[in-house]
Amino acid sequence: MATSTVLAIDLGGTKICAAIVDASGKLLARKTAPVDKRAKLAPVKQMLALADELASYVGKANRYCAVGVAIPGLVRRDGTVWAPNIPGWDKIPLARLLEKELRVPVVVESDRAAAVLGEVFAPKGAARGKSDVVALIVGTGIGAGILTENRLLRGAHELSGCAGWMAVTLDDSPEVRQLGCLEAYTAGPGIARTGKAEIKSGCGGGMANIGADKLSSHDIAELARKGDKAAIEVYRRTGTLLGLAVANLISLFDPEVVVFGGGLSGAADCFWSELKQTALERCQPISAKKVKVVLSKLGNDANLLGAAKMAWEAAQQTKPAARARSKKQVKARAAGA
Amino acid sequence: MATSTVLAIDLGGTKICAAIVDASGKLLARKTAPVDKRAKLAPVKQMLALADELASYVGKANRYCAVGVAIPGLVRRDGTVWAPNIPGWDKIPLARLLEKELRVPVVVESDRAAAVLGEVFAPKGAARGKSDVVALIVGTGIGAGILTENRLLRGAHELSGCAGWMAVTLDDSPEVRQLGCLEAYTAGPGIARTGKAEIKSGCGGGMANIGADKLSSHDIAELARKGDKAAIEVYRRTGTLLGLAVANLISLFDPEVVVFGGGLSGAADCFWSELKQTALERCQPISAKKVKVVLSKLGNDANLLGAAKMAWEAAQQTKPAARARSKKQVKARAAGA
Repeated sequence: MATSTVLAIDLGGTKICAAIVDASGKLLARKTAPVDKRAKLAPVKQMLALADELASYVGKANRYCAVGVAIPGLVRRDGTVWAPNIPGWDKIPLARLLEKELRVPVVVESDRAAAVLGEVFAPKGAARGKSDVVALIVGTGIGAGILTENRLLRGAHELSGCAGWMAVTLDDSPEVRQLGCLEAYTAGPGIARTGKAEIKSGCGGGMANIGADKLSSHDIAELARKGDKAAIEVYRRTGTLLGLAVANLISLFDPEVVVFGGGLSGAADCFWSELKQTALERCQPISAKKVKVVLSKLGNDANLLGAAKMAWEAAQQTKPAARARSKKQVKARAAGA
Repeated sequence: MATSTVLAIDLGGTKICAAIVDASGKLLARKTAPVDKRAKLAPVKQMLALADELASYVGKANRYCAVGVAIPGLVRRDGTVWAPNIPGWDKIPLARLLEKELRVPVVVESDRAAAVLGEVFAPKGAARGKSDVVALIVGTGIGAGILTENRLLRGAHELSGCAGWMAVTLDDSPEVRQLGCLEAYTAGPGIARTGKAEIKSGCGGGMANIGADKLSSHDIAELARKGDKAAIEVYRRTGTLLGLAVANLISLFDPEVVVFGGGLSGAADCFWSELKQTALERCQPISAKKVKVVLSKLGNDANLLGAAKMAWEAAQQTKPAARARSKKQVKARAAGA
């Protein structure tokens, strides 16, 4: 039996992942590859090749009716994409380029937006079916996807949710000014930086044995799990700062759910109880009783499933008349008109 | 010539103000009075009396076609109002009570929401015609009205914009836990508290002469204007903390304009340059180049003009058919049905 499906693409700074997803959020086929950065439009060609390959896996009967793409940057209101980690991507009309070739509606959103939509749409999403959600994503960088009354909060210049810039301490330093306060201390590289500072001050514990040059946030998490007091303290402070940030998100957005995701959630055992306690003790107290603060269970699939959700919305919004016109235009273009 | 008008009411914790406002935001008649707190429904009766009185001033030809009310609390989705500073106001169906008597559409919103709408609607509004605006209101308490893509951000439980709870330092204290970090330090009573702490530590300067018992944020502002170093330092720190809060609002909401209003704006000369510099240096840098951070020029009229804006929207949204039905119902009720 034919299944109605969409194509979801998650473009990251280093990896690209694409999948055919059905209406229930089930992945029928998926493929991950390193991003092809040999030419400016190489990632677009890669997306088209992935679309063909995945379509051939699931067969014509399960062909996708729309495409959603999550990108590591921002989508301007004119549809062009800026993605600082992809060479030459300062003004790529991505949706238009893909639509021209794939002949179905294509929607492109930031990875922050995709992450929050994934949590709302996916069967295992931590905010499934909710309308007011903040997804705080912490990895190499920090960002927040924000849904209010079922709508993505975009901001005046598509720059909302830059949560890594949240000031939660009075500290001032070159890193704080370059990356933002929260990101400078609690993104992966920031945690490593804190560990290195502890080594320098002679309080590095087991971290000193690894050495400041090599030390990563993963190393510190490993040491903390083995009971190293200095490493435990680095993650306790990380939990406090992230907890204050989550408190601020609750007090300002009054969401039903705050979902914590991204690479750092792999070390949640080292900071989660401190984060959650701080968040709920320090936010607006009525909101504290109503909100849920939870860890994402989607791992790397959040963006992909969010992209699928966007594609489903695009498919629904495209009315038959508009689709017919667009097909006619495509045919006319193909005929050289 | 008859003018189309609305009735705007700003209910505060101590004062109530009502005005007849025309479509251009001009106040045709206004009256301010102390809030009548002798009985639970006394403020409602007071609103009805003010409505009659103001209507008689402007004449039948300029009769209001809708009513907007700003309240110092929250409006639940079922339409009931909670206003902690008005005795017994934990579940007042304010819009319904007023509609029943006034026989025109009535809309009720929080004062935070009214403040941001006032800045967008009023001829002298600092965000006139803008769609993405944050109004940070600092007086005895702190709150933020937030407009995104021309829509009020409400939150899941009508508790968005509780900006006084923003954590911008690592400090922890009974006041911080009771009022929220930002409010504990930078609302009027918080500034006085900082001054009192300086007196206690022997660094109070001219503040010591006033004495800790009497010291207010106004006194400290007066001393700062006269060059008292300790008082200047209290307001410099206030400016830094408020600047970090504004930076966070910019990084999270990406607005076109942040408007600073409320009672504390009367002392803006003591902290504005510090606030603005901190805000723009510490927020997301692309947003910093695009956002405007400005002082409100509306003073006490922001809420009133925002209430007028809501009333205009209610008047437009009420279709002729719906109005006719409602009038019929009112007549039936009046006839004892």
